Amino acid sequence: MLEESVVHKAVSVKVSSGVLYNCTTVRKNALLKAINKRLLSEIPGIIAANKIDLENAEKAGISKVLIDRLVLDEKRIRQMVEGVKDVIKLPDPVGKIFGRIKRPNGLVIQKMRVPLGAVGIIYEARPNVTIDASVLCLKSGNAVMLKGGSEALHSNKALVAIMKLALKDAGLPAGCVEFIDTIEREAVAVMLKQDKYLDVIIPRGSQQLIRYIQGNSSVPVIAHGEGNCHVFVDASANLKKAEDIVYNAKVQRPSVCNAAEKLLVHKKVASKFLPKAAERLRQAGVEIRGDETAVSIVPSIKPANDSDWYKEYLDLIIAVKIVENLDEAIQHINLFGSHHSDAIVTGTKSHSERFLREVDSAAVYSNASTRFTDGFEFGLGAEIGISTQKLHARGPMGLVELTSTKFVIHGKGNIRK
Amino acid sequence: MLEESVVHKAVSVKVSSGVLYNCTTVRKNALLKAINKRLLSEIPGIIAANKIDLENAEKAGISKVLIDRLVLDEKRIRQMVEGVKDVIKLPDPVGKIFGRIKRPNGLVIQKMRVPLGAVGIIYEARPNVTIDASVLCLKSGNAVMLKGGSEALHSNKALVAIMKLALKDAGLPAGCVEFIDTIEREAVAVMLKQDKYLDVIIPRGSQQLIRYIQGNSSVPVIAHGEGNCHVFVDASANLKKAEDIVYNAKVQRPSVCNAAEKLLVHKKVASKFLPKAAERLRQAGVEIRGDETAVSIVPSIKPANDSDWYKEYLDLIIAVKIVENLDEAIQHINLFGSHHSDAIVTGTKSHSERFLREVDSAAVYSNASTRFTDGFEFGLGAEIGISTQKLHARGPMGLVELTSTKFVIHGKGNIRK
Repeated sequence: MLEESVVHKAVSVKVSSGVLYNCTTVRKNALLKAINKRLLSEIPGIIAANKIDLENAEKAGISKVLIDRLVLDEKRIRQMVEGVKDVIKLPDPVGKIFGRIKRPNGLVIQKMRVPLGAVGIIYEARPNVTIDASVLCLKSGNAVMLKGGSEALHSNKALVAIMKLALKDAGLPAGCVEFIDTIEREAVAVMLKQDKYLDVIIPRGSQQLIRYIQGNSSVPVIAHGEGNCHVFVDASANLKKAEDIVYNAKVQRPSVCNAAEKLLVHKKVASKFLPKAAERLRQAGVEIRGDETAVSIVPSIKPANDSDWYKEYLDLIIAVKIVENLDEAIQHINLFGSHHSDAIVTGTKSHSERFLREVDSAAVYSNASTRFTDGFEFGLGAEIGISTQKLHARGPMGLVELTSTKFVIHGKGNIRK
Repeated sequence: MLEESVVHKAVSVKVSSGVLYNCTTVRKNALLKAINKRLLSEIPGIIAANKIDLENAEKAGISKVLIDRLVLDEKRIRQMVEGVKDVIKLPDPVGKIFGRIKRPNGLVIQKMRVPLGAVGIIYEARPNVTIDASVLCLKSGNAVMLKGGSEALHSNKALVAIMKLALKDAGLPAGCVEFIDTIEREAVAVMLKQDKYLDVIIPRGSQQLIRYIQGNSSVPVIAHGEGNCHVFVDASANLKKAEDIVYNAKVQRPSVCNAAEKLLVHKKVASKFLPKAAERLRQAGVEIRGDETAVSIVPSIKPANDSDWYKEYLDLIIAVKIVENLDEAIQHINLFGSHHSDAIVTGTKSHSERFLREVDSAAVYSNASTRFTDGFEFGLGAEIGISTQKLHARGPMGLVELTSTKFVIHGKGNIRK
């Protein structure tokens, strides 16, 4: 019964994706405008549905932080509407022609950007993802199958109902957005096997959720791994800038994936740099762990153990290692890091160049905070997620990353000899 | 024991990939030249190893076609050497910088092309793939883990030994090329679980092999699906050209994935086009199946059944359907096709444009044979395979498709507000 329902929705998404595949930009934007109109006219209904989720969450004793993520008030709904407006303004990647070559036999070979087709999104608490992610998929010509967190079930159902009304307003199939409206986890397992109908699954949530999906999906997955990010302060670094960057990368928002978890310091500047930097971090409430040398320079630093170098804390904790040189820094980052975002602070151009080339991470920085790894900060105008994979997309993903390509070949009756 | 050996090789490939990641083009080309030198000096050794495989194959009663694929004589070894020379000449995609944007805060954000890392290739009979595929991986900065067919075991071992000597000549780790030298199928199962060490697996072989790999791999797979390719002859087609294209697409090499398996003909030209085209195909030994209308026009055509429209024959068989119009042709191809290569023959520009935009296949053709879907024909200079997936690469894959990207960000002490 549950399986049948999930498969039925996957088929519906696949069939509807064929209509979206050929939609003009004007028509897709009209759909997004219709979604906004419905969102604004249904504010009381959304808040009422959200209230049920909030009451259930309180009854279940869910933490205040999680409950705050669940809340949909008028302000947040209007923020969602503004987000949709931003997506309307973004250029539509679909249909773009590029890479033209003419072959000696006269064939003209080009690539055309096309939608991926049917995209599955599996996400947790925040109900705003329901609108944000759907709208990015729709603008890039993809139909979308949603599986949200159980805590937000009623809010998500209300938001999906609004999108289905808007699809009707825009004369498009209701199946362009399907939602799995059960809280049973088995539904996810069934969804992960719909490789016949879904072209990709993008999970958004905890590392536990993402690892489960990666390990059990026959649908290709674009996943967001951990962010064990490093800042390396080189011997030639401007130490004031280095301190600002380390402080920003660690403290500005410690719970996110692009926050720094490790600080590597060149031995030549360690005794000058570390005491001041450590004191500033300490004042912000950061717990500092370190290798022997770091502890010998700043005795208040706690000894780090071997597992620290692999850890993503997502908290006000940082581990410091004093390194011999650039080579040791690069090796350490490539070996212990998670290949997300890593930065060098240096005044030596050749060191910057080597770091940027040799560190194998989704985003590598010279003299800037790792906190910039983000679709908006990178100028993509939007973000469906951050990929730490190497296939298809790496780093922040916007509309273009929700597309594929096809080869388009013009001939004049050409046959192969 | 077997598992330990496979995991050990996967680790070796991963570690070695770190060295290749930063190799200059000059150094990679020197490696390829060293491989060629060793191939030429070891011709007798390769032929002797190949002889063992050939004798075993004959004892096992393997078909003549398969045995022909196995043969390595001096001519074929010299062809392999020429192939390596071609790859030496190809531009190195690694390190290329593109997509530069400057943000209002002064950050300069670019993308850099980088190797994927560790590539697994699982393939069947032909031993030349051992060299061809390895050389493409090495040139694009990737280490490679090979699992060849059991029939070619001794030939493959000899070729891998040559590459390991060449790696030594070039001062690179022997682990840049690892080969699973067992014929036990369990080795493949173990290889498919090495997601910690392998970045991608590219299977080359039968649909059965590819489906097994897709269904059982925790490593991302780039797969080559079936080719149920169509040619649609529109009402405005130049019928002589249409006949040539259909004949070429079906007859020139019927056993390959880009050969046409289906012929759709606009009803307006069916009675004029079909009898001549059918007669020419028949003379080439092609069995023609068709829908009711096709049979009514050419009575020697056998009635097709429903399953025919889904089938990839890979043989001198074609099925013909008479369609009402362009819409029916596009719908039929998107519904029954395998999204590989599909062509329209038309004199109407708007029909060509609609077909190219609306048919959702890896390669779409206007007035040309589907047989051109090939890395060399598309000017990539090489081909590691053809992807029928939508993620990462779609269509023929060359060196660029063996790479990923990373974001490279230059700042001047930038921190996030």
